[in-house]
Amino acid sequence: MPKNRVVDRPIILGIVGDSAAGKTTLTAGIAAILGQDRVACICSDDYHRYGRKERAERKITALHPDCNYIDILEQHLRLLRQNQPVLKPVYDHRDGSLAAPEYVAPKPYIIVEGLLGYHTRAMRDCYDVKLYLEPEEELRIRWKIQRDMGKRGYTREQVLAQIKDREHDTQAFIRPQRTFADIVISFYPPEDHAEETGSQLNVRHILRPTLPHPDLSPILDRGTNSGLHLELSRDTDGKPVDVLEIRGDIARGRAERLENLLWSLIPEASHLRANVGAFDGSGPQMSHTLALTQLLIAYHMVKAAMGEHAI
Amino acid sequence: MPKNRVVDRPIILGIVGDSAAGKTTLTAGIAAILGQDRVACICSDDYHRYGRKERAERKITALHPDCNYIDILEQHLRLLRQNQPVLKPVYDHRDGSLAAPEYVAPKPYIIVEGLLGYHTRAMRDCYDVKLYLEPEEELRIRWKIQRDMGKRGYTREQVLAQIKDREHDTQAFIRPQRTFADIVISFYPPEDHAEETGSQLNVRHILRPTLPHPDLSPILDRGTNSGLHLELSRDTDGKPVDVLEIRGDIARGRAERLENLLWSLIPEASHLRANVGAFDGSGPQMSHTLALTQLLIAYHMVKAAMGEHAI
Repeated sequence: MPKNRVVDRPIILGIVGDSAAGKTTLTAGIAAILGQDRVACICSDDYHRYGRKERAERKITALHPDCNYIDILEQHLRLLRQNQPVLKPVYDHRDGSLAAPEYVAPKPYIIVEGLLGYHTRAMRDCYDVKLYLEPEEELRIRWKIQRDMGKRGYTREQVLAQIKDREHDTQAFIRPQRTFADIVISFYPPEDHAEETGSQLNVRHILRPTLPHPDLSPILDRGTNSGLHLELSRDTDGKPVDVLEIRGDIARGRAERLENLLWSLIPEASHLRANVGAFDGSGPQMSHTLALTQLLIAYHMVKAAMGEHAI
Repeated sequence: MPKNRVVDRPIILGIVGDSAAGKTTLTAGIAAILGQDRVACICSDDYHRYGRKERAERKITALHPDCNYIDILEQHLRLLRQNQPVLKPVYDHRDGSLAAPEYVAPKPYIIVEGLLGYHTRAMRDCYDVKLYLEPEEELRIRWKIQRDMGKRGYTREQVLAQIKDREHDTQAFIRPQRTFADIVISFYPPEDHAEETGSQLNVRHILRPTLPHPDLSPILDRGTNSGLHLELSRDTDGKPVDVLEIRGDIARGRAERLENLLWSLIPEASHLRANVGAFDGSGPQMSHTLALTQLLIAYHMVKAAMGEHAI
């Protein structure tokens, strides 16, 4: 929590995207920067109305609003925003069952990640910052196979069949939520490494004018486009946006300058920098694009807590 | 729901009392009169924070407020009163485990029965009518043995040991709630049938002036005290109250006259009378005292729905 925080209710971040879009990874990284004990993380999958077996019987996917307690998720977001605790339902991804609920107390920051977080106006009105994750589709499928086979007990064939079964609902209910995000984040492999799924991924941030984005001109003006690029563009729907591109192979020094710039813009949160650890780029799993994405989001959360996002 | 109902939020009845005080039986009877599809019944045992095994490990009884999600129960009562649904936790009495929550939509009438329903001011403020059940203690113990051995898999020795273990918390947390009730209801055996647990029980209603009670004088004036008696008295705390006594062996004609009088006082709800069935007193399990008690409470619920209890 920044010093001199002025907003005395939780600041709520929404992270919406299709299955295996990278929501959990991004949530964990942002929570680490803001401080684990100051963040409550809620996965909206916990609001599934039916377990895995009952979904199969009813021939309904987890992506369908009717398969989720949408009105209860709305209610819980509203209550948390009012600094009240909730008794959150629990969905167990390991075996697809519904379990006993758990008590969630409000924290200074709340991250709500899931499939249908922007489905209703009442939910959308609860967030301070709204992200939509839209990785390149081939990359998402590779991520989904890795995760569902590794952690959820599915076979490769089951994962591919599920993606096919869900395509209709993805199109009908998930993708339409993209339009409500302040920032659309797309990870994608570099041209010469189409199979890349990790640290060398590039990232594109589509920055909508619904949030005051940080002024990156001090970095952008300094030299050539070595891995970092900001450009006025049109979104897929024709609307004007800024597009920030960060390449996976960005030079370490340039990444550091962007990092330093962002921290300098939120001096109230300088003590949080210790949460990030040394930014040395030496580990094989170190991803500059992921780390900088997390920091950009954390920047917005801190600014919101300072009351500077009430534009 | 009475015709011309004027209150457009649920009317909430509280039924509080110790374990096996007769809460569930009374709840079922009142719900039957008001109409099953118009009543939502909530058992506050569902708000236990710990299952049976964890309570034993923590050496805490189910009667202790710390063993219950009191703040969530408060929140859910408030939400229901505001015509909003809740996702209610579930406690499975059969094996003492916590289960997946269930969706409860608001209904015209809500009955909330349990151990700690009047523990906080915020909860008490949610009810329209508040009952406290206080059967004679020997009778309660007989009821508890019957039920816990029959439905919850305990032995007789376990039930008696549990009563002893719980005595401290009963004294500390359950009995102090008596003072908040509008009506204190005590079933007790007739003098010559000390072992009676069913249809021949007498009942005493202590009527506090916190509700406008029905005018029973047309019945009381008519003849002798044949099983029905109303008297000004002092409660155990010295406060003035009316005490209504109905004997288990009340004459059938007199019970019918009381029944007719009560229905005549709520003509808006005359269509509900079909829910009660023929009041012929012929079945071996027919209890005039239980039936009249249920009707007196239903009377108050209908009056509250008509906006006539906002004294």
